[in-house]
Parts: sequence; structure tokens; C-alpha cells
Amino acid sequence: MPDTLASQLDDASIGEEIFALAAELYPICRSITGDGVRATLNHLRQHVPFELHEVPTGTPVFDWTIPREWNIRDAYIKNAAGERVVDFRSSNLHVVNYSMPVHDRLPLETLKKHIFTLPDQPDLIPYRTSYYAERWGFCMAHNRLMELEDGLYEVFIDATLQNGALTYGEYLHRGETDYEFLLSAHICHPSLANDNCSGLALLTRLAERLASVKTRYSYRFLFAPGTVGAIAWLARNEQTVGRIRHGLVVSCVGDAGGPTYKKSRRGNSAIDRTMTHVLRCMAPSSTILDFVPYGYDERQYCSPGLNLPVGLFQRSQFATFPQYHTSGDNLDFIRPACLAESYRLICAALNIVENDCRPRNTMPMCEPQLGRRGLYSAVGGEGPGNSLALLWVLSLSDGTNSLLDMAERANMPFAVIAAAANRLRQSGLLLVPTGS
Amino acid sequence: MPDTLASQLDDASIGEEIFALAAELYPICRSITGDGVRATLNHLRQHVPFELHEVPTGTPVFDWTIPREWNIRDAYIKNAAGERVVDFRSSNLHVVNYSMPVHDRLPLETLKKHIFTLPDQPDLIPYRTSYYAERWGFCMAHNRLMELEDGLYEVFIDATLQNGALTYGEYLHRGETDYEFLLSAHICHPSLANDNCSGLALLTRLAERLASVKTRYSYRFLFAPGTVGAIAWLARNEQTVGRIRHGLVVSCVGDAGGPTYKKSRRGNSAIDRTMTHVLRCMAPSSTILDFVPYGYDERQYCSPGLNLPVGLFQRSQFATFPQYHTSGDNLDFIRPACLAESYRLICAALNIVENDCRPRNTMPMCEPQLGRRGLYSAVGGEGPGNSLALLWVLSLSDGTNSLLDMAERANMPFAVIAAAANRLRQSGLLLVPTGS
Amino acid sequence: MPDTLASQLDDASIGEEIFALAAELYPICRSITGDGVRATLNHLRQHVPFELHEVPTGTPVFDWTIPREWNIRDAYIKNAAGERVVDFRSSNLHVVNYSMPVHDRLPLETLKKHIFTLPDQPDLIPYRTSYYAERWGFCMAHNRLMELEDGLYEVFIDATLQNGALTYGEYLHRGETDYEFLLSAHICHPSLANDNCSGLALLTRLAERLASVKTRYSYRFLFAPGTVGAIAWLARNEQTVGRIRHGLVVSCVGDAGGPTYKKSRRGNSAIDRTMTHVLRCMAPSSTILDFVPYGYDERQYCSPGLNLPVGLFQRSQFATFPQYHTSGDNLDFIRPACLAESYRLICAALNIVENDCRPRNTMPMCEPQLGRRGLYSAVGGEGPGNSLALLWVLSLSDGTNSLLDMAERANMPFAVIAAAANRLRQSGLLLVPTGS
Repeated sequence: MPDTLASQLDDASIGEEIFALAAELYPICRSITGDGVRATLNHLRQHVPFELHEVPTGTPVFDWTIPREWNIRDAYIKNAAGERVVDFRSSNLHVVNYSMPVHDRLPLETLKKHIFTLPDQPDLIPYRTSYYAERWGFCMAHNRLMELEDGLYEVFIDATLQNGALTYGEYLHRGETDYEFLLSAHICHPSLANDNCSGLALLTRLAERLASVKTRYSYRFLFAPGTVGAIAWLARNEQTVGRIRHGLVVSCVGDAGGPTYKKSRRGNSAIDRTMTHVLRCMAPSSTILDFVPYGYDERQYCSPGLNLPVGLFQRSQFATFPQYHTSGDNLDFIRPACLAESYRLICAALNIVENDCRPRNTMPMCEPQLGRRGLYSAVGGEGPGNSLALLWVLSLSDGTNSLLDMAERANMPFAVIAAAANRLRQSGLLLVPTGS
Repeated sequence: MPDTLASQLDDASIGEEIFALAAELYPICRSITGDGVRATLNHLRQHVPFELHEVPTGTPVFDWTIPREWNIRDAYIKNAAGERVVDFRSSNLHVVNYSMPVHDRLPLETLKKHIFTLPDQPDLIPYRTSYYAERWGFCMAHNRLMELEDGLYEVFIDATLQNGALTYGEYLHRGETDYEFLLSAHICHPSLANDNCSGLALLTRLAERLASVKTRYSYRFLFAPGTVGAIAWLARNEQTVGRIRHGLVVSCVGDAGGPTYKKSRRGNSAIDRTMTHVLRCMAPSSTILDFVPYGYDERQYCSPGLNLPVGLFQRSQFATFPQYHTSGDNLDFIRPACLAESYRLICAALNIVENDCRPRNTMPMCEPQLGRRGLYSAVGGEGPGNSLALLWVLSLSDGTNSLLDMAERANMPFAVIAAAANRLRQSGLLLVPTGS
Repeated sequence: MPDTLASQLDDASIGEEIFALAAELYPICRSITGDGVRATLNHLRQHVPFELHEVPTGTPVFDWTIPREWNIRDAYIKNAAGERVVDFRSSNLHVVNYSMPVHDRLPLETLKKHIFTLPDQPDLIPYRTSYYAERWGFCMAHNRLMELEDGLYEVFIDATLQNGALTYGEYLHRGETDYEFLLSAHICHPSLANDNCSGLALLTRLAERLASVKTRYSYRFLFAPGTVGAIAWLARNEQTVGRIRHGLVVSCVGDAGGPTYKKSRRGNSAIDRTMTHVLRCMAPSSTILDFVPYGYDERQYCSPGLNLPVGLFQRSQFATFPQYHTSGDNLDFIRPACLAESYRLICAALNIVENDCRPRNTMPMCEPQLGRRGLYSAVGGEGPGNSLALLWVLSLSDGTNSLLDMAERANMPFAVIAAAANRLRQSGLLLVPTGS
């Protein structure tokens, strides 16, 4: 594969294209099961032929069991005048995700026990879930709750919780080898733009463009509901996950913060070193975090029995921005330019793992004469200039160092080192052993 | 052993109890041999059944030989008027420890060659010794020396230096295994409160309380004269010192400085990591020092042929506080609260070595479902809260990490990690292999 | 060899002697081939019996070929009035080194394409070369160029480029073993005082003094033209370079900056640790640099197929001082005191590699009794004083640590540790196994 993967995958419109797709996904009410996930995947199938997998309710997946399927049509709280003071139709965050159905009339004081607000962010609706405890509830802006007058309220949640299935989507871009690069995003959050419409849209656009590119690795795109969805996929693919050589969980990639990379549990896997290099070279304000067993589905990929080399890529780290898990995480919070930068950082990482190798200098005794090959300035006395990358590659190409090792030791971007290696290979000064 | 070792050994009065015992030991005139050591050990036997060992004068112990036994009854310098201007009865520091007997009349100028003072601390009496060179001498406050008028002075040291024995005391608390934790204090210093009445008193109180506790390790308490006493013990126990898995030399544990831990020569032994963790978590003002071959009896335990995992625990580091080796190291210099804190830090270290283990996660494939076991908040969307320690233990319990490893990687106190491990064990999610 | 190598090699006049020799070499017009190199080596043979080696034009040396030999007699630019406005006789920097011969008459505008100046340093003549591209050219002060009036100029370079040879000089001081310490300086630069008359003069004075000293290592002094000269030597000695255990490239050792040590490609070879120790102890303003594959002939010695333990010693790092590769690098720029300090730092490194060893403590069980051997203060209670180095050596002499390891761990100068080891050896407390 040529060294121009990044340019093959990129164009000026990528940020707008990712944003537009995220905006289309935003209104859909997703959960860990149900028709919202199916609608999302079917929408994305306009771009990439995702395969939908259905795992029936009750299926054991490692320590877990696939829950009943939740679907919701409508929900509201009406005041004594019959006005909807809380309306699911205006925001699907208003209902605690996975709420039991309810239809009742309650005095305000009793109703309040079922209502979640954010007193410190009184105009935002919180996002809450109750997947594994049977309850019902509403979420609303604290200021709206304060305005409610005493009296009887009608509560109605037209939801069903029935045997059905958990749905996930999967797409494999086949490369020259069966070794895989896993790109995973959670698909269970309702109307939250950054978390994770941004991730779903970015990876779909990447898969779409990658389709026409010949790669060394196979790329597996997995859009599964958080936790139980990833666990279901791992349980069903336990025998083959060993193919995964690199992986990224991608979420919250549209805001203006970060970028942030959280290392895999291994801490020094190739994807950890690759993302660290990419962020240090291309995003000076970036943060590299050590593994912590809390976060997104890297929790499952990195569990001790699997210990896969999968890290987490984000812009702002989850739970650190005030819009996190609130109605503030809307389409105003994500930006085409930020989505484009996230996309480019991921492509730069792909470029590294695709092109990394351990070349051998064919002239290891002293330096070869670069000048007669047109690789060195003809007038002496002025310093190495552009030849320094060539000298680094020649110096370190003893078969033990990868191009990424060289980039780190030379403190130069991988792309500069890889370009130097290409020039040397064209001059016959470098060999790349097969499979190195 | 339960995880509550620290609480089993502790109570609110511990600081006062250690101080009271140190105060009882303070007046006794100890040296590296003689009745002072015996009197000290016999006093401590009211609390702990120390065994007294007598090593005869002339016994070879490695490169050394047990010296003659020194005992002193009285000593003074009298002026022409017959007044005691220096009086052993008011402070046993007045006589150079191990002085030869003398009875003579000398002019002041000649006498001064036998007198040690501290011109920079003119009101303090220095502590000086002459174990291996035969001489006699006095120590006194510089200001008192300056007041002496010319004339003849009577010097009298009623001491004996005769064949006898070197005495040390030893007590073994037997645990479930023969592996030992050595707790060692020097018993050769006369009236110096911090150095080392504090150490003798603290360890005696610890041994006293430990007697009723079932432990994994056996705990050996050794009160031996500095250098030659420790060497004698090591020479006599050369075949069995390999049982020592951890060790602490304890001295100067009653002042308000520090605390300080000096690592063993190995630098990364379990006691080094344990004390570093304890001091970082519990004593933010603490200092961790690398090994230096000067100090207390860790010099002997860490000699290259033994290289035992024994560190030094102190409050202020020796030779860094102005009261060190002077009459300023008196009972006003040590405090019950400081003694109690020292005691608690040592108990925290014992708690770690007693409870550390390498558990195994019984559900290593993905995370187990903590929610249905009551180990996780039922409402989602709000962060891990108290579950984070559980997640760390599950993540790292692959049989290679000890609880202390986990505490360090999670940057959490050992006690929090150990408590999480207990909860997981009770839920069947963790196994502790025997001997792990 | 005694520990006093440094004092054997040193005397108060060394700085003046090195300076005087550098001043004698300064006027000679050297290049990578030609009579200037021969004249330089023949001058140095007054002090040290350097052997001159001639490698014929056309000889292949690894990837390179020995070029034709360049010699120059005269060169000038004359104005219309016949006045020499640029005159080789006033500075040999005026001619681009390795210029083709030329005799022509050119208008100023055409002539300017052959002239190099430094607009930012308008009073200095740059140093430029064109070894491997056939061209002619002049170098001059920018201000002088600006003064030239339009018109025709006569250019004349009376040089020859013909089959001949490349010359290098070599001198071997034989030690007890065939293991070698390589001391290498480039001999191809014309009138540049720091770069590298200073290095040639310093190493010649070192070789001269070393002649009367018995050493463990053999010391090879190599004065070869930069790059192709070093490559020629390596190609001709490929079978024996494995004898080189340590090496230093020495250049720019007379200015007041630095000192600077650039590590070998290995990064942790004995010479790297030795020079780091010497500079940290003796030159607090020093800089230690990691290896970079650009610089002087360490580029060749450290090429991946050789990877010799050879570092670079300088005062100011090359290409970082404004006089670098200009007529400002003249005899005013180097100073006897700086040359002397450079010399002493190199001698200190030689002292370390000559005297380093891995001794064994003959009394490894506890400390030996230093007092009865006169190695410890007789009055106790006052601290270790000068005995601390003895204690460090005893503690670490388990056969795994070298004296340099001990100096680093004790944070003491090597000379202090080596002196302590000598005292212990004299007392029978230390053995130095043969070949340790």
C-alpha cells in the first residue's frame, strides 16, 4: 500500500459530510435494544453494507444475559389543564432510557421521586438509564420542574419491554491479511450528538472511503450497544478475536476539546505507541492517558481474559465536559472542523500501522555515498538539511527498528521517516523483508 | 488474617503508652555491653517475654570480636573546692561511653584534652563513645566549660572494663509460616529519648499487642547493641536469616519531623515498595531515601553477603536534627502523637505484607455483571463512584499482579483495594490461590 | 597502571603547548586529499611518530571511491585595475575547497554565481567545499563583495585535480592488551582553528605524553580526512575494528563554550557512561547529547554495520557557534585554558577506563571492622566523614558492580571511589579478579 493512505481517504468536504450524517442520526431514540438501533444501522447502510446481527433475549453472553427488548412510542407528563409539561416528542432524553410502561395520575410530590434533574445546570435535561432495574422515570430541566405547581399530574410512558433481540451492526473491509484493525463505536445512546452520533458518523464515512483502498490489514467496523452489545459480540467471536492486532474505540469525536487518547490495558501496544506519536506530532494540545478500567467498550476488549490492544480515541474525555450526558450534547456542540481533525488523526494512525516495517540498510558499513545518488546537497559545509531523515533511516535500519521506532528516536513525524525510507528503497539502499 | 490488622493493633492510648515506656527506659545508662542493656531488657519483659542472650567477651563474630564488658557506677570532675562541676549522676552523657577508669588530679589545660563540647550548641552535652580505642573522657556543655577557672581538678570515672558478655534480647511472635518479618532496634544508647528509647518502646508495645493476633508471617523482635550486637546476632543465626522476607530497623520515631524511610540495598524489595506506598498515602510530608551504607543496623543486614530486604524507618533522619546525639534528645523532644503516628505507619506496612496476594478474576472474559450482585449503581449515566476500585481489582487480577501492584497502578490506598478484593471474593468473582 | 594517570599526563604548561601546536597547523591549506594533509602530519611527526598511509585515487572503500588528489598553489580575483580583490594568499578559505582550476575574465554579474558570502555575518569569509561535484568558486566577506564595482574581473585558480592518493596518519601506543581506545580527529579542514587544529594539536600532545606511560589499553590515534578518510581507514581495517573497546572523536576543543559530549549510537556504552560521569563531576555547565547520525566521523564509526562505542567530544557543539565554518574560527577563538580543560577531561576519561574493575569484598558478611585497620574515626558519634567512600565500595563490591557503577550510585567522583578501593585493597579487604 502506498504511503498516501491519508490522502486517499481524505478530501476537503469530510468534516461537513461527517456532520451531516451525525445530524441525520441525532433524532433517533436509541437504546441498548430496540428499533432505534435498527433504524440507525439501516440509515447507515445507505453508505456502507453493515450486516445486522440479532441476539435473542435470554441468550447468555459470558456473565450476562441479553435483556428484553425495549421500544417506546410516546411519553408525557400532563398537568391538570391537560398540557404536556414534559413531552417525549420534543426530546427523547425526557424518558429514563429503558423505563417500564406507566399510565397513572400522581400528586407532584410523589411524581418528583421519578424525576431526574440537574440543579447545577438547571436548563439542561439529564440523560439517565435503568437497564437492569425495573423502574420508570422522567428527566427534565430543573428550572421547568421548579415551575410546576402542586396538583395532580398524568404520567404516561407508552413503552414495551418484551422478548425480542439485541441488535448490532458489523462491516469488514478485507485487506491482504486476516489480521484485523477493530474500529468500534457504541450505538445505544439516544439524542446525544457527540456521544456518540459523532463516532458512528465518522467511522461510517471512513468505512465508505476505505472500500476503494487496498490495505494490508482487514478493518472491522463494529457498532454495538454499550457494554452488553460489545460483550455479546465478544462472546460470539471468542475464537477469532485473536486476529485483532490493533483497535480503537471511537466516541465523542466532534467537540472542540482534546484530543485525548486512552491507552489499552497493555500500555505499550502498537496502537498505544501509534496514537501517542500521532497526537504528539499533529495535535500539540492532546492528552495521553493511561488505561483506567472505566470508560467505553475498551473496558470489555481490555478485560483480563482478552487483553486486546484496543485504546479509546476522543476529543474531550468523557465525563469531563459539562454537556456530557445532557441535552447540551446537541448538534451545536459538534463542529465539522473538529470532526475532520478527528478523522485525520485516525487516518494518520491507519497510515502508520499499514506502512510500518523493519527495513534493512543494504550498505550498513559506513554511510553510503548519498551525493552521487542525488540524495545530498552538493555544496559542503552547510549542514544536513533534508538529508537528516535519510541519515536516521540508514542509521537505524538494522532490522531491529521499525519506522515508528525511528520516528520516535529521531523525533520526526512518521510520514517524514516513511518518505525517507521510500527514497532510500528506490535508490536500492533499503530492503523491506516480507512480513517485517 | 482479616484485613483489619491495623485496627486490631491500635487504640487511642497507644501514643501515651509508648511515651510512658520510653520515659521509663530513658534514665538507664546503656552501652554496647553491660548491665544497662540487661536492665532495659528486664524492664521490657514486664510486657513481652524477651529472651536474653549473652555472647562472651572474646567470641569472634565475623570480622569482629566481642569486646570486654563495660560498667560504670559513678563519675565526676571536682573543682578545687570539691564541688562536682561535672556529675555523671545528673546525666550519663557526661562520660564518654566506654571510658577507661581514671582517678587523677589535673590542671584545667590538660583536662580539656579529655573534654568534648559543642561550641555551636553551647548549652547541650554531646554524646560521644570510644568503644574500640582505650581512652577516658568527659562530655559537657560548652558554656559550663567556659566557666571553669584555672586550677587543679579531680577526675574520677568509676568504671570497669572486664571480661563479661554482650547482651541482646529477642522475641519471636510465631505466625502461620516460618517466613519472618524482622523488627530491629538498637539498645546501646544511654539517655537519648528519640535515639532510641522511642524505637525500643514502640516495638515493645507492638509486640505486646501482636501477641493476641494470628498472623501469616512470624515476627522477630531484636533489640541488640548497635553494629557489634547486630553482627553477633547475624553471625549466630547465619543459617536461618534466609527466612527473613521483610525487615525494618526502627529508630528515632518520636520527634515531629519526617517521617523518613530509607530503602534496603536492593532498592525494590517488597518492604521498600510497601513503606513507599504507606508513606505516600498516609504521610504526605514523608521522604523516601535510597540506600546509603551508613546509618543504623541496616548497614549490617544489607551487607553484600547478606543483602537482606531490611529498610530503616525514622521520623527525622538521623544526624539531620540539631538534638541528634546531644542532651537535647530528651523526653521533651518526643511526643505521644508522633509516636502514635509512627506506630500506625508501621502497622499499615504489616497490614500490607500480611494481606497482599495475587488473586485471580473468576470471570476474566469481559466484565462480570456487578449490578445484579449489588456492586454497582442501578441508575446509569453517572460514573463509577465507589465501583472503580472493584473494576481495578477485576481488571488486574490475572494472577500476575499483587494487591500492592494494583494499589500502585490504580493510585489508590492499599486498604481500598484490599476491601474491594474482599467484596469480590465474597461475591465469588475472585479467587486467592494458596500461597499467592 | 596506577590511579594517577591524569597527573602523569598533565602539567601546568599543557594548554600553552596545545595552543602553540595548533597555531603552527593553522596556516596550512588542508583538504580531503593533497599536500596540506601530508605537511600537517609531517609537522606533527616532530612530536609523535605518526605513520602516513596513502590510499590511491580510484580505490574502492565500501560504497565510496577515493577521489582525485587536489592541490592548490594560488588563486585570486583581480579587478580591472589588476588589483587582487580576493587573494588566496591572505586566506585559504577564499577558494571553495576542491575547486576545479579556472582562468577567465567575467563580468561581475556572472562572477557572482561563483561566489559564496554570509549576508548575516558580512565581515566573515565562509568555508565551503565541493568535493564530489566539479565546480569552481570563491568565498568572501559579504561587505567586500558589495564594494565591487561593475566591470570585468579576472578569476584564477591555480589548482590541480589529478590521480594521486588520500593520506591519513596513524599512531598506536601499545598497552598491556590489544583492546584499543580510538582517538580520532579530522585533518581535512584548512585554516579553521577550533575545527580542527585544536583537536589535532590536543591529541598529538596527549600521544606525546602517553608514550612514557604503561597502560592497560592500546591507544590508536587516527588523523584522517573527514568522511572519506575515516571510511578508507575502516574499509582497510574492517577485520580488526572489533578490538576497539572505547573511542572518542575529538574536534572543536579550544573555544570557551560547552563542553559537550554526544553519545555513541549504542547510547549506554562504557565511553558514554564514562564521559557523562566526567562531565557531570568536572564540568557542571556541560551538555550530554543523544546520538544523532550527523556530525563528525562518529557517523562512520557508529554506522549500523559497525556500531562501535565511539562518541564525540567538543566544547561548543559544531554548527551552534557563529564562528563555525567561517574565518571567525581563527586563533583568537581558541584559548590555552580551554584547550587545557578539554585535555584534562579526556585524561579523566582515560583514567576511568584504565582503572575501572569489578572488585570483590573479601569480608562480605556484615561490615569489616574498619577501626582496627585505621580506616575509621576512633571517636564514635560524629558521622562517617571520609569513611563513606570506603563503605560504598565495601557495600557494592559483590562482583557485579564496577567502580564506575559505584561512583554513579554513590554520587561521588570516580577518583574518590578508586582511591577508596585502593585503600581497601591495601588492607586486604578487596580483591580485584584478573580481567574484571
